[in-house]
Amino acid sequence: MDIHWIGFDADDTLWVNERLYREARTRFDALLVSYGVDPAGADRRVDEIEVQNLQWYGYGVMSFGLSLIEAAVDLTQGRISGQGISQVLELTKEMITAEVELLEGAEQALAELSSAHPLLLITKGELNHQHSKIERSGLRRHFRQVEIVPDKTPATYAEILKRHAVEPERFLMVGNSLKSDILPVVAMGGWAIHIPSDLTWEHEVVEIPPELRSRVFEIGALSELAPFIDTLKGDGPNRKSPARRAGIA
Amino acid sequence: MDIHWIGFDADDTLWVNERLYREARTRFDALLVSYGVDPAGADRRVDEIEVQNLQWYGYGVMSFGLSLIEAAVDLTQGRISGQGISQVLELTKEMITAEVELLEGAEQALAELSSAHPLLLITKGELNHQHSKIERSGLRRHFRQVEIVPDKTPATYAEILKRHAVEPERFLMVGNSLKSDILPVVAMGGWAIHIPSDLTWEHEVVEIPPELRSRVFEIGALSELAPFIDTLKGDGPNRKSPARRAGIA
Repeated sequence: MDIHWIGFDADDTLWVNERLYREARTRFDALLVSYGVDPAGADRRVDEIEVQNLQWYGYGVMSFGLSLIEAAVDLTQGRISGQGISQVLELTKEMITAEVELLEGAEQALAELSSAHPLLLITKGELNHQHSKIERSGLRRHFRQVEIVPDKTPATYAEILKRHAVEPERFLMVGNSLKSDILPVVAMGGWAIHIPSDLTWEHEVVEIPPELRSRVFEIGALSELAPFIDTLKGDGPNRKSPARRAGIA
Repeated sequence: MDIHWIGFDADDTLWVNERLYREARTRFDALLVSYGVDPAGADRRVDEIEVQNLQWYGYGVMSFGLSLIEAAVDLTQGRISGQGISQVLELTKEMITAEVELLEGAEQALAELSSAHPLLLITKGELNHQHSKIERSGLRRHFRQVEIVPDKTPATYAEILKRHAVEPERFLMVGNSLKSDILPVVAMGGWAIHIPSDLTWEHEVVEIPPELRSRVFEIGALSELAPFIDTLKGDGPNRKSPARRAGIA
């Protein structure tokens, strides 16, 4: 293997993200309870609204906030008060301004890899919020380029690689989402390292087809990343490497 | 002058945009009236909330929708009903899915210029919505690259030009917004053609400092663009050209 360019996902790969969504949902549930709505029964409706709105709003916190507002009206049958709406707006803003909490080993993994590889940050979401997080993370300097995209499909990755004149065969993507970071990359001929996150949005979980699994590796933490990539560059992937887990292949 | 690369703004330069915001505001005003709020007196508060939220939400329709919801709660002192909130969500979605209405001459101007110049589309706003409009506009094929940015500052333009290895002196930007399309470009050493729009958000109006005015031209419509750029490339800008208007310089 002759990996040169390395792409990194950001949310839940380099910094905490999903936890903020879960915490916001907990606060939203408490709001529903105050209207006599059973949050357990409401969960599916919130998910449904959120996923349905992706086509119009895309991925991100504003999208999430607008969906929660819609769900609040829907689930309370219009009984939600102005103050209740304000609480949803408030939690949306708090998510946007939340401190960027780096995952353990993020800084060091990037520092080690950037000396030998051009690194790309490839993240989906809202432009303003993602730029703000990248700046505040302190990690910007490790990346050759930052790519914020509306969605992560094989075509998205192919376009980015073409623009940087990178062969898919020499590109490896690192991320926590099988749907966004792993499957589309291996589907267009690249390589991928999956680092499962403690929390992942269920919308981001997919099955990797058997014929593509040999292009996917799995490690447990960012601290294992640089050494593992070194072994890949050596005499090929060691199929019995302890870094390889049973989850994927 | 040796202009090679040409940048285009999109909203209100190639297609109708501000009119959709004005129409949404008219519908929002009617909603306020139904709560006994005088929309004339409320206008300033809505603007204030919208501009204050730019730092968190950035530019675009979701940002606008969230600000209208906040303003609705604020101006009705929490009396807004769930149904009222639904109406604001509805008008936000209608703006996002509204047909892309090209400005007269857009298609032809791009077709003419793209034969001799690499064209860049440089637009600020929300990733998902802007991508969707670009695809639906049918204009994508004229552009070498599409750049969707959170804001348009001199540094934004300088970064884009650096990435494409373009000298500012050989770059000209075409747009309707003095604040976003004209001033930052001439401030970092480029050239600009201002095509005033019938409707422009007042937040986008600024004064061009006298020492930069010689780098700004003004034309009345997209149909004048390709011929005007031809005259610029000839024996320099004709300072008495009828295409030059008194508004700017």
